[in-house]
Amino acid sequence: RLKPPRRAGAFCRPAMTVTYSSKVANATFFSFHRLLLRWRGSIYKLLYREFVVFLALYTGLSVVYRLVLADHQKRLFEKLSMYCDKYAEQIPVTFVLGFYVTLVVNRWWHQFVNLPWPDRLMVLISSCVRGKDEYGRLLRRTLVRYVNLTSLLIFRSVSTAVCKRFPTMDHVVEAGFMTAEERKVFENIRSPHLKYWIPVVWFSNLASKARQEGRIQDSIDLQNLLNEMNHFRTWCSTLFGYDWVGVPLVYTQVVTLAVYTFFFACLIGRQFLDPAQGYHGHDLDLYVPVFTLLQFFFYSGWLKVAEQLINPFGEDDDDFEANWIIDRNLQVSLLAVDEMHMNLPPMTKDMYWN
Amino acid sequence: RLKPPRRAGAFCRPAMTVTYSSKVANATFFSFHRLLLRWRGSIYKLLYREFVVFLALYTGLSVVYRLVLADHQKRLFEKLSMYCDKYAEQIPVTFVLGFYVTLVVNRWWHQFVNLPWPDRLMVLISSCVRGKDEYGRLLRRTLVRYVNLTSLLIFRSVSTAVCKRFPTMDHVVEAGFMTAEERKVFENIRSPHLKYWIPVVWFSNLASKARQEGRIQDSIDLQNLLNEMNHFRTWCSTLFGYDWVGVPLVYTQVVTLAVYTFFFACLIGRQFLDPAQGYHGHDLDLYVPVFTLLQFFFYSGWLKVAEQLINPFGEDDDDFEANWIIDRNLQVSLLAVDEMHMNLPPMTKDMYWN
Amino acid sequence: RLKPPRRAGAFCRPAMTVTYSSKVANATFFSFHRLLLRWRGSIYKLLYREFVVFLALYTGLSVVYRLVLADHQKRLFEKLSMYCDKYAEQIPVTFVLGFYVTLVVNRWWHQFVNLPWPDRLMVLISSCVRGKDEYGRLLRRTLVRYVNLTSLLIFRSVSTAVCKRFPTMDHVVEAGFMTAEERKVFENIRSPHLKYWIPVVWFSNLASKARQEGRIQDSIDLQNLLNEMNHFRTWCSTLFGYDWVGVPLVYTQVVTLAVYTFFFACLIGRQFLDPAQGYHGHDLDLYVPVFTLLQFFFYSGWLKVAEQLINPFGEDDDDFEANWIIDRNLQVSLLAVDEMHMNLPPMTKDMYWN
Amino acid sequence: RLKPPRRAGAFCRPAMTVTYSSKVANATFFSFHRLLLRWRGSIYKLLYREFVVFLALYTGLSVVYRLVLADHQKRLFEKLSMYCDKYAEQIPVTFVLGFYVTLVVNRWWHQFVNLPWPDRLMVLISSCVRGKDEYGRLLRRTLVRYVNLTSLLIFRSVSTAVCKRFPTMDHVVEAGFMTAEERKVFENIRSPHLKYWIPVVWFSNLASKARQEGRIQDSIDLQNLLNEMNHFRTWCSTLFGYDWVGVPLVYTQVVTLAVYTFFFACLIGRQFLDPAQGYHGHDLDLYVPVFTLLQFFFYSGWLKVAEQLINPFGEDDDDFEANWIIDRNLQVSLLAVDEMHMNLPPMTKDMYWN
Amino acid sequence: RLKPPRRAGAFCRPAMTVTYSSKVANATFFSFHRLLLRWRGSIYKLLYREFVVFLALYTGLSVVYRLVLADHQKRLFEKLSMYCDKYAEQIPVTFVLGFYVTLVVNRWWHQFVNLPWPDRLMVLISSCVRGKDEYGRLLRRTLVRYVNLTSLLIFRSVSTAVCKRFPTMDHVVEAGFMTAEERKVFENIRSPHLKYWIPVVWFSNLASKARQEGRIQDSIDLQNLLNEMNHFRTWCSTLFGYDWVGVPLVYTQVVTLAVYTFFFACLIGRQFLDPAQGYHGHDLDLYVPVFTLLQFFFYSGWLKVAEQLINPFGEDDDDFEANWIIDRNLQVSLLAVDEMHMNLPPMTKDMYWN
Repeated sequence: RLKPPRRAGAFCRPAMTVTYSSKVANATFFSFHRLLLRWRGSIYKLLYREFVVFLALYTGLSVVYRLVLADHQKRLFEKLSMYCDKYAEQIPVTFVLGFYVTLVVNRWWHQFVNLPWPDRLMVLISSCVRGKDEYGRLLRRTLVRYVNLTSLLIFRSVSTAVCKRFPTMDHVVEAGFMTAEERKVFENIRSPHLKYWIPVVWFSNLASKARQEGRIQDSIDLQNLLNEMNHFRTWCSTLFGYDWVGVPLVYTQVVTLAVYTFFFACLIGRQFLDPAQGYHGHDLDLYVPVFTLLQFFFYSGWLKVAEQLINPFGEDDDDFEANWIIDRNLQVSLLAVDEMHMNLPPMTKDMYWN
Repeated sequence: RLKPPRRAGAFCRPAMTVTYSSKVANATFFSFHRLLLRWRGSIYKLLYREFVVFLALYTGLSVVYRLVLADHQKRLFEKLSMYCDKYAEQIPVTFVLGFYVTLVVNRWWHQFVNLPWPDRLMVLISSCVRGKDEYGRLLRRTLVRYVNLTSLLIFRSVSTAVCKRFPTMDHVVEAGFMTAEERKVFENIRSPHLKYWIPVVWFSNLASKARQEGRIQDSIDLQNLLNEMNHFRTWCSTLFGYDWVGVPLVYTQVVTLAVYTFFFACLIGRQFLDPAQGYHGHDLDLYVPVFTLLQFFFYSGWLKVAEQLINPFGEDDDDFEANWIIDRNLQVSLLAVDEMHMNLPPMTKDMYWN
Repeated sequence: RLKPPRRAGAFCRPAMTVTYSSKVANATFFSFHRLLLRWRGSIYKLLYREFVVFLALYTGLSVVYRLVLADHQKRLFEKLSMYCDKYAEQIPVTFVLGFYVTLVVNRWWHQFVNLPWPDRLMVLISSCVRGKDEYGRLLRRTLVRYVNLTSLLIFRSVSTAVCKRFPTMDHVVEAGFMTAEERKVFENIRSPHLKYWIPVVWFSNLASKARQEGRIQDSIDLQNLLNEMNHFRTWCSTLFGYDWVGVPLVYTQVVTLAVYTFFFACLIGRQFLDPAQGYHGHDLDLYVPVFTLLQFFFYSGWLKVAEQLINPFGEDDDDFEANWIIDRNLQVSLLAVDEMHMNLPPMTKDMYWN
Repeated sequence: RLKPPRRAGAFCRPAMTVTYSSKVANATFFSFHRLLLRWRGSIYKLLYREFVVFLALYTGLSVVYRLVLADHQKRLFEKLSMYCDKYAEQIPVTFVLGFYVTLVVNRWWHQFVNLPWPDRLMVLISSCVRGKDEYGRLLRRTLVRYVNLTSLLIFRSVSTAVCKRFPTMDHVVEAGFMTAEERKVFENIRSPHLKYWIPVVWFSNLASKARQEGRIQDSIDLQNLLNEMNHFRTWCSTLFGYDWVGVPLVYTQVVTLAVYTFFFACLIGRQFLDPAQGYHGHDLDLYVPVFTLLQFFFYSGWLKVAEQLINPFGEDDDDFEANWIIDRNLQVSLLAVDEMHMNLPPMTKDMYWN
Repeated sequence: RLKPPRRAGAFCRPAMTVTYSSKVANATFFSFHRLLLRWRGSIYKLLYREFVVFLALYTGLSVVYRLVLADHQKRLFEKLSMYCDKYAEQIPVTFVLGFYVTLVVNRWWHQFVNLPWPDRLMVLISSCVRGKDEYGRLLRRTLVRYVNLTSLLIFRSVSTAVCKRFPTMDHVVEAGFMTAEERKVFENIRSPHLKYWIPVVWFSNLASKARQEGRIQDSIDLQNLLNEMNHFRTWCSTLFGYDWVGVPLVYTQVVTLAVYTFFFACLIGRQFLDPAQGYHGHDLDLYVPVFTLLQFFFYSGWLKVAEQLINPFGEDDDDFEANWIIDRNLQVSLLAVDEMHMNLPPMTKDMYWN
């Protein structure tokens, strides 16, 4: 899954999981062919089971046709085969897939772009909420914890993996995203609806209180914080929206049906018929239908692109690793607002001073 | 319809209605085939009536051809059939549908994205309008009620279901979105045009009054509130715009005509002709035109995607449930600005304190 | 044209002109077929003249072929017909239209989205420009009038209908968008260029003056007003830009040429040839070329979509009614800044108070 | 080129150069056919030279085949012709052009949208920089001159026409965009990189100085000015980016190669072969290959759309006239900040006062 | 690579590397054909190796067929060839490539648009951080250095070339982007994650400190700076996101497989078969398969477009030169905040003063 490995401070290009961009940095001699030989996240890994099934069915039919059927049955099968072949070509798999995959890829990318990162907020909290004393630290840590809690609540609704890790609110409290007191207040708020907005309201009220107490200097600082928080909330609700309202089921069914029908028609229609019968285009018996198998790879592969991306919070090789995001965000944002608050390296003249 | 069920606080992945994203979280062995076996919101549920009609007509024609027609009539019918078949293939159903459905799906998604949610506003009102006394509560509740009233007025214009629930302004008053006094003022404003902007003006004037009275601290807070309100108003007017100015009727007619013509041509052109006549491509009489029926499913299904999404505020399985949105927004926003105002859980050190 | 009728306060779904969204709210049994039976804004209304011409030409040619030509001329015509038919199929009408119509539809929608509505500005003016005395009223009314004047000047450049209604500046003054004094100043400003930016400068200077006089409280309020005004100006100049720089003429010509050539080729190539000659695919003489006529409807209809939308400020059934927009905006915005200024309904407890 | 003519104050629809939107305001009887008869900016004007070349080559080959070749050479040529015809049909000109032209048209439109207009800035400067005395005037004029200078420096890099008009910095100074002192400072700044950012820095420092001196009232006004200036700068750098990083050369070459190959194949493959030889599809000798010539117009025309738009700052009929933009911006912006500063028409009651 | 050459102050159109926009400024007689004759960044340079391989294989096969095979083997090969030819036509290379290249080109352009330029920030720092004394200079230089450091850290992750130039943090310190003290603090921050956010936090804390000390006048100035910095950070993280989450590997494999399969099928299927055998479409033996070779150029060229653009930070002719960007940004931004701070040219009256 798409998780940048936890690497040391000094590094170059991170060795990510199914990232292959460094492999194709330069367009050299047959450069894409190297991609064809990978296994992780590859078309082969995704498709080998379906491929085996398809091949077995094809071979079975072929054996039956060649060895089992009587002569008049063979003639009938040959007619059926040519009938199927004719219609296989009429099925508009390419276009349906082209339009559908474009839709799915766009949705997938927008979900990536809307992943909630607390970086913008932590920078503001770190610089605008004053005080190196305990109360100041508490204030900043609590604010940033609310931010992380909001995204955690959304990830629990959206991602299977996060839901497995935090099945109940107990787990959320145990992991340190919520204190026991907060949980009590949280559960006392009577609403039948999803409650991810509650920490957002806490955040805004706490920030407002901090302004009254002078910890946040003035309304400018406060409103900038609140706007960023609303920004963050919008990312969360956008993610939720993508999960809630998916690609219309009918569309997915239409595409799947088209592809499956095509391969069903190919199973019969792409059999090698007895060359002795002299059917047009059946002069040659190769036993292995190379091009049909390659077509199986294109079209199934293209459909697999959609299957992988339609829910990017699953556990596929190419899915976003939400648990890693949650951990990274908590660790980094606590660092930024607490340890790094007003903890600046000494300013010295740079080497281009004059 | 797309309504997240009212569920308790502790939950994992919400069991939404025609949401199937959790079913396809991982791209496993033939993972999409499971989607083919669903009924709710499925292609079968949407199309079975049309399918029965198509099949009946096809069968009727087939019976007439086989049993009723005299020999020379059969010969004529056969010519007609081949003529129809030839032209059926020339009708560019795939492309027309591809471009049209892309347009409709984009519009549908933009409507979803522009649904008016008061969350951003309620957060600001909760933190920036001061006072736990009765006047403060009244101020916050009234402001947030105006927000909800604005979206209700728009939903009444846009959604059939909301219009059924609130056929007159009496119903709006009864449901608590408007007080009787407000209604009087509302109806005294003489304008022949849609009046959803009236609560927006009330909101802004009330907020301005609150600043004069010191309930809103300064202009920064006020302007941020007004900007958010304008943002909210823009969502509302965008929804209205999508309802007002639809996909040009001519475009929809072109697409529908293309699909219907195609199936009309198929009814005649895809009949199995007497193999004894030796027509090219008519060696086999299968009685059931499997591939034509599958094509019926693709193309009609694809058109159904458009039919479902072209007005997402109807009562289809995949439509947005506006009534649920209205209820959720009122309940949640009153909670946030009243009960939760400055009602913070006690701050304690989190578990990563040092 | 797209004008929501001036309706009373209590209403449900507005009965708009060529809006059919309420007709297709639910995807029911053959739901789109009802759309095929409409006349207003329909493909039939748009195309019946062209259709009659096409049919007349086709029939004329058919009569000549059947009755006038000598036998050897018939043979020649038959060859010509088959030649035309072969090339008619090669003309890529579908793709060219698909890409072109997508472009035109996108431009049309962006123009709708950029229509200048003064609602955001009137809300700000109503709440931020103080004073119920005559000077305060004058200030607010003048500011909002400048806003409306800006959009009127743009609409005069862009829309044929508005240009007919306001052919000279006299008409603008008479309609109350400009006073006689303003007109004098306006015309004294020596610039050879379009002058729609003049009221924008007046607006900003007047607002600045109002701040100096304390009518606008501080710079925050002022800058928010100026930003909204710049926003409004951008809408206006965007509309102007769409009118100024259209779809490149060459593109439109390419598409038109492709469609017209196709139909010209069809006129000859789709004639029913004498079945007795035994030409391939010419076994049947139906007299009426049903499928060619249907193709005429698809392709011409698709092109008509573009013709209708390429200039949405004309007088087609589907065009935006700019005059209605101008009237609505003036009426509503004067109401909002004057009569409704600080004229709030009394605040009372809502029904969910406790 | 796309230059709105310098017209008097009272006007209706501006008579722009290759603008045809007013011609197609209404979708009437064969409305697009009028567009087919234009010359300026038309497909004919752009293509007549290529067309003559193509026709000459075709005729030459035709004459050679008919009159020069011996019989066995004719047979060979006929085979070659049919071979070419077969492959001409396989070249995917339509799709390649569809995707490519869509890309180019999008880039062209984004460049139009990103043309730098100083209108937003001049409105702010006019209302927020105080003082009708000479120093105030100098301040406003200098600020707005820096804005115009920035865009001029970018236009010099981007547009051939502007580069011809201002080949050196001397010309810039002479035209009044820069003073001699500024030029000296400008050239003393040692940087090997493009220097269009220098007037931006001057602008911001001058504005900051004006705040210290009280000419700009407070930080709110200042920051709004700086943000608008940064907005303006972004437009400039976006234009520069589009010029710097074009459509990848390979893509353009692929498309050009496809189109040229197609026409090369047509030259031979679309010759009328001797009907007496009885080749399939060659029953008729029309001498003039009408449909091939029409195809030449579609495809070449479509490619010409790309050629015209790929660099919209050239001197084509459809290109943006940058020199006109520069003049308009300077004239209008100086007017707005100087002559019109606090020069308001007297406020009088409008005609709807009560 | 895409690096504008370091040119002197007075220049016109910069002579960029693979920029050809000035070559196509005007759409003249066969204007694109000149592009076909370039070498740098051209299709020929990119493809000549693959072309040679393809041609060698084709020739080899051809020689074997003509000279080596026995007669019955020839017959078999001919059947195989026709079989391959038939399927070569069925492979949907055009569509797959069209949709895929559109996706890749969009991603590539968004990466260009998101390149982090410090210009907006340097303008604000230069005008809003006060003081020409040493401390003021130090403050401005340090702030702008943090900005450059942030982008450098991202470029090291994203670009091969930058990674080669700065393999360790030592190189970063040596190049003057970081001081030795900063490096110590940087490395003491314990986080397993990518640390590009650290200079952002330093920036915000330093700016906040500068406000306390009165070097930044008030919160308005501060918040504008912080917002710009967050803007800059978002560019950086967007670039990182594009590198981290690429086009799904499966999609790339599907496309590559389709293209390679097509050419493999062409190798056999496009051989010239013995005309004496009288196969349909094989009347002519040209030895050189002109059209197949041209198809090789289209399709491989189209795929090369994707190969070049899929990672725009490699070392292709068309890639973004990140090292040049880094140098330019540091040089220009130090100039703007230090040397040019409050160093304005004297204001004089412009030539249009009255």
